[in-house]
Amino acid sequence: MDIKILSRDVLIKVLEMPKVIHGVESVYKLKARGDVAAWPLVEHHFDGGAVMDIRSGGAFGNVGIHGAKLLNNFPANQDKGLPVFTGILMAFDSETGIPLGVMDASYVTSMRTGAAAAIGASALARPDSENLLLVGAGRQSIYLLGATLIKFPGIKTVRVIDAFDPENAKNYVTTIKDRLKAELGVDAQGVAIEAADNMEEAVGLSDIILTITRSTSPLIMKDWLKPGTHLSCIGADMVGKEEIDPEIFRIARCFADDAKQCCTVGEMEIPAKMGIVTPETVTGEIGEVLAGLKPGRISNDDITVFDATGLAALDLVTAKAAVIAAKEKGLGITAEI
Amino acid sequence: MDIKILSRDVLIKVLEMPKVIHGVESVYKLKARGDVAAWPLVEHHFDGGAVMDIRSGGAFGNVGIHGAKLLNNFPANQDKGLPVFTGILMAFDSETGIPLGVMDASYVTSMRTGAAAAIGASALARPDSENLLLVGAGRQSIYLLGATLIKFPGIKTVRVIDAFDPENAKNYVTTIKDRLKAELGVDAQGVAIEAADNMEEAVGLSDIILTITRSTSPLIMKDWLKPGTHLSCIGADMVGKEEIDPEIFRIARCFADDAKQCCTVGEMEIPAKMGIVTPETVTGEIGEVLAGLKPGRISNDDITVFDATGLAALDLVTAKAAVIAAKEKGLGITAEI
Repeated sequence: MDIKILSRDVLIKVLEMPKVIHGVESVYKLKARGDVAAWPLVEHHFDGGAVMDIRSGGAFGNVGIHGAKLLNNFPANQDKGLPVFTGILMAFDSETGIPLGVMDASYVTSMRTGAAAAIGASALARPDSENLLLVGAGRQSIYLLGATLIKFPGIKTVRVIDAFDPENAKNYVTTIKDRLKAELGVDAQGVAIEAADNMEEAVGLSDIILTITRSTSPLIMKDWLKPGTHLSCIGADMVGKEEIDPEIFRIARCFADDAKQCCTVGEMEIPAKMGIVTPETVTGEIGEVLAGLKPGRISNDDITVFDATGLAALDLVTAKAAVIAAKEKGLGITAEI
Repeated sequence: MDIKILSRDVLIKVLEMPKVIHGVESVYKLKARGDVAAWPLVEHHFDGGAVMDIRSGGAFGNVGIHGAKLLNNFPANQDKGLPVFTGILMAFDSETGIPLGVMDASYVTSMRTGAAAAIGASALARPDSENLLLVGAGRQSIYLLGATLIKFPGIKTVRVIDAFDPENAKNYVTTIKDRLKAELGVDAQGVAIEAADNMEEAVGLSDIILTITRSTSPLIMKDWLKPGTHLSCIGADMVGKEEIDPEIFRIARCFADDAKQCCTVGEMEIPAKMGIVTPETVTGEIGEVLAGLKPGRISNDDITVFDATGLAALDLVTAKAAVIAAKEKGLGITAEI
């Protein structure tokens, strides 16, 4: 059996964001039909603060893939000149069990996370949205921005804010258009992209807000939002992380990638602990909106929230797209196993 | 980061049974000191009878490795001309999280399982054992036989019995010496290897018995055993499988690779359900004997049993040996990830 081995460098060459978005949408829709599995998380804490986890699952139906990714986070590597984060993903055809590919997990995760933010906005934000606020100027944020600009060609202004380091946002905007073009093939020449430093003011000007920070307390308050705003909250993916005011969940139409997981480790965790939301009372899952099973936004004035915590099936559908593209382009290593 | 990709063909070239035995012994000893982890099994049953499982864990201390193997069993592949069993193993350095290798899981599993049977015999059987009975003539049995012949150069006679298909054992013995030499480098020219068909008689003649079948009822009864016999029971690795009389567990010194796992899915499962053994009352774990923490055989007349159900750490230590050997021999694919 031949499988594809794809390095990060090859993945950057073969993964195209529009195809990643398409794959992630397919998985969300399949999830609404019960055709996506997330198998139990395996997690181990090493002495010395390192952590490894194994996330596994599958998307069946017309996607037909299962597998696992093993991620390592070894903070002490910083001092050794070694990468702190490493991870490998392995993907199998779920019709036959035949292995398809083994690859670096980090770039796949970045791309599908960006796609998720954009899909949430596309399904829930006002289609005529023109003002985008990107909260977070770290490693992941370019993927959210690029994917959302693909989904919303009508965006005129992007404000970038780094609540922890305003200088970082200023540096970010100086190169972001070139990076969007080079790394994601997104032409943002017609878009004004500027750094912001007043969160309240920036929030009040925005139609779409994307959050991708490591925050553990609200950065965005309910009263700052103008009617009709959409928020895709991506940063909160473990217990204790929080980016927006829990009170927003009282007034918004709130959607999850996975309702139970979002109420356990996502942006909905704190509101759930406060009794504001439960997996049963959340408005719905994003796949239900995409599949036409539930309405997303009902009026132009609705505040909408999408909370994404990630599913192994999103990595796997992205891995499948990468394997197909690598074969077409003759890239990556083809190895017998 | 460069990792090694090792196919089954390369693994056959690089893995040497004596080194596999050494690695498996190391892990058993580490386990006795609490330095081996088996993380929760992830298992999924597909519609149509296919099963996939993910076994993960690590061996720390002087071994320093963690990882996972994902195994697929798709019976319907038989009719499609595709392999029924596929699996991939990924191994990481547990000091740094850096990936070491990705490889075919099946050959690694076969080799370490053979090693386990031999290590159990080496730790528990009489050192002057001359008569070996191999119960099972399927795909796995050559690894048990080869490893045990390495550990017991004094073996004079090997009887091979297939309780389900006597013809199979007859065919098996015609080629086994050549296969032992070619596949495992074991010279068995001085050993008489013959097929047997009377289980009771063969059992009564044997000092060491290795069982590796898919049986779900006892093939070997307590009263057939002569004093001093050792049994390494390897076939029973899931609920319902059983190769030997539960009554043997009342009279034998019984050792497990993992006491809890053996009482749940191993040869000890049925005796445990009958109240004959519990994880607490089993004589010990094999690692405790190897580490000198518990006595194995006490007298020449003891009946001893070793029940092995497998640990991910055994695959991982074998994978590490394979990566080291492949680097030394310049074999396998070195891939950037």
